[in-house]
Formats: sequence, C-alpha cells, structure tokens
Amino acid sequence: MKRTRLCDLLGIEHPIIQGGMVWIANAELAAAVSNAGGLGLISPNAGMSPNDDQVENLKEQIEIAKSLTSKPFGVNLPILNNPHIEELVTAVINAKIKVAVTAAGNPALYTSRFKEAGIKVLHLVAAVRHAQSAERRGVDAVIAEGYEAGGHNGLDELTTFTLIPQVVDAVTIPVVAAGGIADARGVVAALALGADGVQMGTRFVATRECAAHQNFKEAILKASDTDTAITGRKLGPTRILKNEVASKILEMEAAGASAEDLLAFIGSSRSRTGQFEGDMVNGEAYCGSIAGMIKEIRSVGDIIRSIADDYGAVLDNLK
Amino acid sequence: MKRTRLCDLLGIEHPIIQGGMVWIANAELAAAVSNAGGLGLISPNAGMSPNDDQVENLKEQIEIAKSLTSKPFGVNLPILNNPHIEELVTAVINAKIKVAVTAAGNPALYTSRFKEAGIKVLHLVAAVRHAQSAERRGVDAVIAEGYEAGGHNGLDELTTFTLIPQVVDAVTIPVVAAGGIADARGVVAALALGADGVQMGTRFVATRECAAHQNFKEAILKASDTDTAITGRKLGPTRILKNEVASKILEMEAAGASAEDLLAFIGSSRSRTGQFEGDMVNGEAYCGSIAGMIKEIRSVGDIIRSIADDYGAVLDNLK
Repeated sequence: MKRTRLCDLLGIEHPIIQGGMVWIANAELAAAVSNAGGLGLISPNAGMSPNDDQVENLKEQIEIAKSLTSKPFGVNLPILNNPHIEELVTAVINAKIKVAVTAAGNPALYTSRFKEAGIKVLHLVAAVRHAQSAERRGVDAVIAEGYEAGGHNGLDELTTFTLIPQVVDAVTIPVVAAGGIADARGVVAALALGADGVQMGTRFVATRECAAHQNFKEAILKASDTDTAITGRKLGPTRILKNEVASKILEMEAAGASAEDLLAFIGSSRSRTGQFEGDMVNGEAYCGSIAGMIKEIRSVGDIIRSIADDYGAVLDNLK
Repeated sequence: MKRTRLCDLLGIEHPIIQGGMVWIANAELAAAVSNAGGLGLISPNAGMSPNDDQVENLKEQIEIAKSLTSKPFGVNLPILNNPHIEELVTAVINAKIKVAVTAAGNPALYTSRFKEAGIKVLHLVAAVRHAQSAERRGVDAVIAEGYEAGGHNGLDELTTFTLIPQVVDAVTIPVVAAGGIADARGVVAALALGADGVQMGTRFVATRECAAHQNFKEAILKASDTDTAITGRKLGPTRILKNEVASKILEMEAAGASAEDLLAFIGSSRSRTGQFEGDMVNGEAYCGSIAGMIKEIRSVGDIIRSIADDYGAVLDNLK
C-alpha cells in the first residue's frame, strides 16, 4: 500500500483510519486497528449505557486502549449538541491522545486547544466550503465523507466520487476519503481521486474486535446493495439499515411529520438499541451502502493485511 | 490509458463512452467523441423541436454522424414510456449502427433483435439486481450509473463508489461506470473499482461540439460542488442544476404535491428549454454533481487526449 503524507502526519504505517462509530467503536477495536498499522478511533460513548457518564467512559476506554497498543490512536468527538464536549476535550488533552477527530460542528472551537497540546486535529466535512473553512481554522487534515457513508451524513448529498476530487482541488492539507470503502479496490480508487488515505466504518463493524452486537454484524453480512436508506432528511440525514424502524421513520417523513415528532419517535439511544443491543427490529443500525460487499466477519488485522496485500494487484490491473 | 475488454467489444481505442443526453447529444458531438477514440452516442431527439418526428430526426442525425466519422458510434434509446420505440429500434437496425444503449426499461424487449442484427447492446442499470437481469437477457455490457449522475437517476440512490464494485462482483460481462467522472482521476478510480470503462455526460456538455446552449455550458463552469439537486423523487429522480425551476419543484414536493401536479408543472420539454434553448430560469438543465470540477469549455478531442495523457501520472502517484 502507498505510504502517503497522512501516514507521516499521524505516525502510522497504512493510510487507513477506522471510523469512530457511536456506541460501538471501543478500545479493543481502536487498538486492533492501530496495532495493524492503521489509526483506530474511540467513540466516547462506546459500550456505555445511555445514562452513564460519557467523560468517565472515555477515560476508561482510553486506558484500555493504551494497555492494548503502544501505537497512536485517536478519539472521535462530535461537537454539535454535545453537552459534555468541554470535558471530553479536556480528557483527550490530559490523556495525551495523539489524534482528535472533530465532527458535526465548528472546527474553530477546539482546534487551537488541541494543537497547543500537540494533538493532531482531523475534521469531518461533506462539502468543499466546509473543507476550506476547516483548513483556515488550522486543522491538520480533513476527512471528506460521501453520501454512501453510514450514520450521520452531509446535507448536500455529495458522493465520495464527486466530493473527494473537488475537496482535493480546494485545499492543500491531506484529505481522507470516507464513505463506500471496504477493500483494496476502494482504497486505490480513493487515492486515485486524490485522497491521502481512507476512513472505513461499516467494514470494521463486521469484525471480531468491534463491540457491535452479533445481530448487527450478521445483518451487514446479509445486506444487499439496496439495503440501506437515508432517514431523517429533516433532522440530519442518517444512513441506516432498512428495517421496521427505518420504514416507520420514512413513513412519518412522507406523511409530513415535524422534526419534533420524528425526534420524539427516534429518541437519543435507538442507535444503541440496534447496534449494541442487537435489536434489529426496534433499533437503528448505522450502516454504509457498501454493506452489500461485506460477506464475512473477519479480524481487523486480517482486513488491513488483505488490503495491503491486494493493493498491488489492483494497481497492476490498471496498467 | 488502459485498453480494456470494452475497447475490444466496441471496437474503440479508449474505454470512454459519451452519454447520449436528451436534446443535446447530437451527431457532431458523437462523431467527435468517436473520432477521438471513444464511443459517441446520439440522442434521438437531439436538436429537434418538441413536436418534430423523433424517428426522422434520428435518421438525419445518424446520416450526419456517418458523414463525420468512419469510427463506431451508438444511439441512446430510453425504452420506458417511449411511444416511438419500435420505429426507433428499426431505424437503428436499418442504419447498421454498431451500438445501442438501452435505458429505463426492460432489456428483454429489444436485446435479441439488436443482437441478431449484429448490434452490440449496452443496458443502463443502477442496482445489482438490474445488472444481473440485463446479463441474463443477453446484453453485451452494462452501464452502471451512480447517484451523482446528471439527469434521470436510479430509485435506490446507489453511488458510483458503491455501485460499481458490487455490480462488478455480480456479473461477468463488462461494466461501464457512469456518474461523477470528468478527468483522468475519475477514470483510474472507476477502473480500480473494477469497471471496464466509463461513461461521461456533463464533461461532454461543456464542449465546443455539444449542441447544448452556451448558457447551459457556462452554468456548468460556474457551478460549485453543491449546485445540483435531485428533483422528482416521486416521478423518477432527476439530477438538475439548482435554479428557479429546481427550487419550485422542490417546494412543490415538500408541500406534498401529487405526481400529476408535478408532471403538469414540469411538462415534457422543460429540459429542452434549459439545455437547448438556454433559458436557465424556466428550463431544467440535467447536470451531474461533478460540474463543480469543470472549469472550461474544451474540444472533445482535447478532453479525451488529456485523460489519456494524465492517466499514467495518476497511476504513478498510486505507487
């Protein structure tokens, strides 16, 4: 696999970041990805109950990850509407984590604090103007996420194929491609479009190390190309596996339900119910539309090794 | 640029097909693409008035293209709701055209007639099951079109990045990637994902040879990454440049307008008004979301030559 400037920036071997997926991106997953040469990310609420203390949970997860790897790993920090964001930022700085990924909010808020502490900052974007703004705010790299990605999604619906080259042309900092990537073909394609690396989420859910419930992992294996849908266009578009909850949300939206009614129905931890508890009827399962290509639960090391092994063959096939 | 099995199938030098865009994919454009080593496609209604005879128009366009190139070119034939489809098929067969691209309808209907006449058939698909069905019906290749593509779009909203590898894994015939491709980076990325070639639409609109109105071409140059939108989710999703008409359609949709009301407002030739007449206020302009990357009107030959020239550099950068 190509060693890009993202590898130098983050101190990693392979330009592969694991998405910091809410509820399920736990220390074991992040450490396994980092040990395999990528960059693992922890979600502050990984594995916790809805009423647990997110800050304490993150501190514990960081300690576990430190006990499992000596390689760099990071923390995913959605900024918007996060009542604990100040304490989470402080916890990340105090723990001397190497990388903070900020998302869903203004990169001006915490970038300088992280950078003063020697922490690299990557900011999630879904359109050119957001990438440019993040660069002006001093972030070290942007993660540009396309419409095919699982979970929360940009309002502009730009796809990985069109978002990446346009962001690459608009900024000088490294660009990480996210959304739709699950194998060496996707990594080569992302790099061909100008990305300096990739972030993969759904592929890392279907691993032995991920804290996702077995039912969720198996639902990914069973999914076809058309088994995800965007829900919540009024609230914040979210790509989830099609199931009863998805149908109900889509029905409510088609019937003109208000944002309040939708929010009341979805609640704040329905994605935990699906992803972590494995209730695939009443729970939401954030999932990318590449799920149809994922056919087995593997170990993280195995996935990253195959991508590294297959990279050359994909390249040879382009000649 | 790599010579793929699509080149052998179609008798072309470069694995690049020009989208057969309604109203504007005229003989001059198709011949220029074919002369430059790709495969040009004519739209039966290219350049005609709404009440002109589509069959006679196609016959004329074919004669003009034949006078401009000795290379293979094709015709784009949307099947669904096309009252003239039988006569158009007969016209294509009688004119001994090399390639028919069928779209928006059942590939079982005309594939065997074309193949008996020695005409290669490519069918447009937007999901794995459609690709498999087209292969079973005997088509020679599929064009798999992602959500980022301009104009009519699949219901499943699969993006190029996720659609291509899943279709490639599901069929054995060549797969052409469409949607989001406008330069050598996109061609390399599409081939990395497993495609045997690409189809480009919007990039070929902004050319000297295309019959599109100058206003439409200039609107593409001015477009940013977020300047297209999907309209008509109830009728058949269609990606168009954002303008007053697009806003009006989206407003009607948000207010719960019926399919009949939407159809009555849009009419049957509003895309001609925008694309061919250049009324960028009252007309629709079908446009892919890669428009933001297109910065100048060029000649077709220039575009194809640059892709061929840049291909090797994109590849070198992946090592």
